[in-house]
Amino acid sequence: MSKTIGILGGMGPAATLDLFHKIILNTPVQTEQEHHRVIIYNNPKIPPRTQHSCPLPEMIKSAILLENAGADFIIMPCNTAHIWLEQIKANIKIPFYSMIETTVESILLEKDSINKKILLLATETTINYGLYQKAFNNTPYDIIIPTKEEQNIIDNAIKDVKLGKISSNQYLKELNGILNVYKDSGIFAIIGGCTEIPLLFHLFEVDMKMIDPTLLLAKLAVQKAA
Amino acid sequence: MSKTIGILGGMGPAATLDLFHKIILNTPVQTEQEHHRVIIYNNPKIPPRTQHSCPLPEMIKSAILLENAGADFIIMPCNTAHIWLEQIKANIKIPFYSMIETTVESILLEKDSINKKILLLATETTINYGLYQKAFNNTPYDIIIPTKEEQNIIDNAIKDVKLGKISSNQYLKELNGILNVYKDSGIFAIIGGCTEIPLLFHLFEVDMKMIDPTLLLAKLAVQKAA
Repeated sequence: MSKTIGILGGMGPAATLDLFHKIILNTPVQTEQEHHRVIIYNNPKIPPRTQHSCPLPEMIKSAILLENAGADFIIMPCNTAHIWLEQIKANIKIPFYSMIETTVESILLEKDSINKKILLLATETTINYGLYQKAFNNTPYDIIIPTKEEQNIIDNAIKDVKLGKISSNQYLKELNGILNVYKDSGIFAIIGGCTEIPLLFHLFEVDMKMIDPTLLLAKLAVQKAA
Repeated sequence: MSKTIGILGGMGPAATLDLFHKIILNTPVQTEQEHHRVIIYNNPKIPPRTQHSCPLPEMIKSAILLENAGADFIIMPCNTAHIWLEQIKANIKIPFYSMIETTVESILLEKDSINKKILLLATETTINYGLYQKAFNNTPYDIIIPTKEEQNIIDNAIKDVKLGKISSNQYLKELNGILNVYKDSGIFAIIGGCTEIPLLFHLFEVDMKMIDPTLLLAKLAVQKAA
């Protein structure tokens, strides 16, 4: 019997919608009934993960809600929230698959790239905590971190996406400028290491490989549910 | 305190995604935390509503799951499933807002149209059961029903959307032909009375008013949650 996917969402709602969309798109079906059961708790009342607040109690409550509702495993479309992953896992009995680990494992399975430098676009909190840097330890990949000034623009672009500004994003031009400088310096790929970033990928005017952790997590969920 | 929206979904997943999207788009926010809590049970294992199957037990289970998980009210992005609305409501204590009633009430609030004929695009089952026709009884509106042959094309177009075929929908050309004949006969509006139909609205090449029950339901949910 197929398993029920649990999504701990709301951080933000657009990223939650994007993950659900990518799960649907990546489920091979001939009839509606072949799609998977998904329980989504879109809980935007979880405090911000980028400020001096503590989102953990509300995240634990949300994970328990999904477990009690019948989810067989949980995934969470917010990279920064993965700082608290182990503490959430300690409060539930069902598996919780990490978006960061899924991304690193997927990249390691690809054997085709020679250039191993990847630019990380993520929130300042995700970068300061070293979530992706630690996960890429002991791999052939170098994770490149933006400068303080560039990071400020990236954080502002993310906040704009959270308010629904995609094509109207005020920071898109500056962001494209930054990406083109990295491209010219020989970096071949970007990790969209904040779930709002892949929502901007189609607006990035740069010839770089774009790695989408939301898509990789959606594919993992479809595989685990089957 | 804002209320938690419950979505009894999966019939089909694309329509569930569409409702969630329209809720997000129609929530006025300055910060992520101002969005509403939404619990979605995307349950595509509910048997088809258009065949000789009984989806009721699985729908009741889904509604109870949402109630137990903490939803304050329920909405359901499937028009045909509203055949069983009263039986589902009898099994839960929280309100369940009807998509059909919401649509009729919204149309009655609009005072601007003189022509009162509206074409109903819905599944054969929704039409045979008279869901919209009954709801428009004792209103100034006439609901126009497609011919048997036209209905066949509409049902096929809906099935294609359920399999993810939007711009690649095989029946789009025929559907546009049908709509233009109705337009020429003096009908001013269409009700997308199956949640897959509004997903095709942007591909309809006809100058008619398009009434989207999913959007109207999303707006109601945002209002009830606030």
